[in-house]
Amino acid sequence: MHDPKMTINAFQLALAEGKAEPLDWWHACTARIDQREPDVQAWEALAVEQPVAPETYLGDSLLYGVPVGIKDIIETVNLPTSWGTRGYLSSPGALVDAALVTLLKEQGALIMGKTVSTEFAYFTPGKTRNPHDPSRTPGGSSSGSAAAVAAGMVPIAFGTQTAGSMIRPASYCGVFGFKPTFDTLSPAGVKPCATSLDTLGWFARHIEDICTTFSALTRAPLITSLKNLAGVRVGVRSLPGDIPLDTDVEQALAHAQERLVQAGAELVPLALDARFEALVEHQKVVMAYEAAQSLASEYSRFAEQMGPKLVELIKDGKAISYVRYLEARRTTNTMQQAMSSLFDEDVDVILAASASGVAPEGIEVTGDPLYCRAWTLLGVPCLNLPLSQGADGMPVGVQLIADRWQDQKLLQIASTLMAKEMPAEARYCYG
Amino acid sequence: MHDPKMTINAFQLALAEGKAEPLDWWHACTARIDQREPDVQAWEALAVEQPVAPETYLGDSLLYGVPVGIKDIIETVNLPTSWGTRGYLSSPGALVDAALVTLLKEQGALIMGKTVSTEFAYFTPGKTRNPHDPSRTPGGSSSGSAAAVAAGMVPIAFGTQTAGSMIRPASYCGVFGFKPTFDTLSPAGVKPCATSLDTLGWFARHIEDICTTFSALTRAPLITSLKNLAGVRVGVRSLPGDIPLDTDVEQALAHAQERLVQAGAELVPLALDARFEALVEHQKVVMAYEAAQSLASEYSRFAEQMGPKLVELIKDGKAISYVRYLEARRTTNTMQQAMSSLFDEDVDVILAASASGVAPEGIEVTGDPLYCRAWTLLGVPCLNLPLSQGADGMPVGVQLIADRWQDQKLLQIASTLMAKEMPAEARYCYG
Repeated sequence: MHDPKMTINAFQLALAEGKAEPLDWWHACTARIDQREPDVQAWEALAVEQPVAPETYLGDSLLYGVPVGIKDIIETVNLPTSWGTRGYLSSPGALVDAALVTLLKEQGALIMGKTVSTEFAYFTPGKTRNPHDPSRTPGGSSSGSAAAVAAGMVPIAFGTQTAGSMIRPASYCGVFGFKPTFDTLSPAGVKPCATSLDTLGWFARHIEDICTTFSALTRAPLITSLKNLAGVRVGVRSLPGDIPLDTDVEQALAHAQERLVQAGAELVPLALDARFEALVEHQKVVMAYEAAQSLASEYSRFAEQMGPKLVELIKDGKAISYVRYLEARRTTNTMQQAMSSLFDEDVDVILAASASGVAPEGIEVTGDPLYCRAWTLLGVPCLNLPLSQGADGMPVGVQLIADRWQDQKLLQIASTLMAKEMPAEARYCYG
Repeated sequence: MHDPKMTINAFQLALAEGKAEPLDWWHACTARIDQREPDVQAWEALAVEQPVAPETYLGDSLLYGVPVGIKDIIETVNLPTSWGTRGYLSSPGALVDAALVTLLKEQGALIMGKTVSTEFAYFTPGKTRNPHDPSRTPGGSSSGSAAAVAAGMVPIAFGTQTAGSMIRPASYCGVFGFKPTFDTLSPAGVKPCATSLDTLGWFARHIEDICTTFSALTRAPLITSLKNLAGVRVGVRSLPGDIPLDTDVEQALAHAQERLVQAGAELVPLALDARFEALVEHQKVVMAYEAAQSLASEYSRFAEQMGPKLVELIKDGKAISYVRYLEARRTTNTMQQAMSSLFDEDVDVILAASASGVAPEGIEVTGDPLYCRAWTLLGVPCLNLPLSQGADGMPVGVQLIADRWQDQKLLQIASTLMAKEMPAEARYCYG
């Protein structure tokens, strides 16, 4: 039954109609992993036992029988966790699952395994390769989850974003990646990096599956598409404005604008001021200051084994004064209000670049989160749309952004946009 | 050397002058614990080995040789953690210390042990008794930390506040209790309850020690007292306004107002509107919705063993809709802005009740956090001042509150107030 076009809802329907068995998708994914994992290396640990599934379909479990991948900074009882450390810190199994894992199980999801993370979700890469080109990075820090979904190994996989760790790998791997509003899902059992930024999110090959997962985890009503995007105002601007964009990204933004207009949306040019530009630096300050606190114990014991970039982050964070940190937090607060006014008055969503270009060559670096830093700092929901291809046929995404707690609106607009006709090969890119 | 008037700074001076040895305070606290613990029952676990302290005083470690207590929802490598579960979930030792524990050790503090918490920092009480009257509750959820400090067992102990779990026990036990601005200290290694509310804080017998600890952990400059409070505007109002106050609390507020005026402050009557009153209900919604997520795994495995109040909280939380949760979060955001305007324009700090009265009789309940819920929801820093005694000579505190990230101002005003002459017996109440 392995069909990359299968959506969660279609599988639920097949189950309800007796046309599929609860473990069908699990077996299909297992076979796909056997086939693709030697090249992609998305997994840190895989479930060894076939899950036990109730024989009858549970109609109110939105994710019944859906195999999911979990980033390896998220704790699990029955699977080891190593936080991207490649062994210097690892646990054979936690005392309790991360809250997310239990919430997924309650919705009937099957935990397929733990996906590769960079070291403590910062920059030191793991072993994972881009399914579209194994000589390239899948992006990070949620490297394995993005790659596993892109390679068709699981329909859904979870990651976190502190700077650009969901949107960037989604763009590089050609999948949808959703970072909901900050605080939408509980971080219980997730290793903190910078706790005012860390946000759980998920990847999928279908916008419909992003939406189903959102409803499953928040108990929000199911998202329904609009007839078209008439009346929807889309703020258009790349970020930051004074850095020239890569041609691939320019073209991806132009393509997305075209599609938005075709679907009936109105484009609104945005002139965000210099205070907005400054958010990138404030994000770096908040991230380093908080990471130096959050990872203090790991640093005190494992500094010698840590990658140089993580050591640098923590050292930078220790050198940041409380006054400088407060300035960043206060500015963030002011800008959150300014953005809310913008969203109240001028636009429904904003269209922006997801990354600086296609996935870079090599797996020693995971690319630059520059284009995501300000949005993460603001805590707004961001969704990568895998709409385009750039150099060498590699995927290039764009992101749609809404105001905090406007996740449902954002997903509804994206659903409507994606329901419109487009070339199949540009829509989903399988490795 | 056990002198309840000893401050951290005085001890550091004694060390620097060669008049004290690094482990002197540790030994004094150990002796005090031997004496008082049978009655107070503040500890879940005590360090079994005497700590190893460097022989020479480290001049830049603000907490050198200071024994501290750590609430038992905060993970430690060398001490067990049981999260107030009385055994159904426990760990002999974590893989890594909570970030707070390492930051304290880096400042030279000595971890004396783990203090009793209510079950997962909610309402099911532990064994701890009020040092002022063992027939009464010390308050909760940071029961053991408040009692240990009040009983002179340690100069500093750490807790968390999600509703009123720092300020209420501080009031009941007659000690200073400080809940800094939300996000001031990393929650890494602290069991989450409601993650947009949970805030690490600490208790002390001296305002000076509250301030020293703040600088040690944030690296903020040391707090200096002002000459007096001339020009300081103190907003005066009890919360919520339509509930009649207990006579003890009325008198404590009147006494605090008198002292503030004597110190030169100006009292500003506050007329907070009904939106502010509504924050209490919004706090309950946020707490239940988030706790139902954060404790989902514990609930799925241990519901049978959990206290009925915790089960009720989680069930309530599961029944709250996403829409209702969003309403609470959006209202909070709006009210945070309204409060910031109030603090910008009209007042420097607000004076309010810490609790509904003196510590209730019995240890089956921990008292009502009503008077703290709105402030915790707003994320503002709150400081209990142990200024008064009520019925049966039991302590009654009041709280001073500032705007978010105005912690230094709040502590400076409190330091200045406490530096002024007052009857010694009302100032610190030892059990």
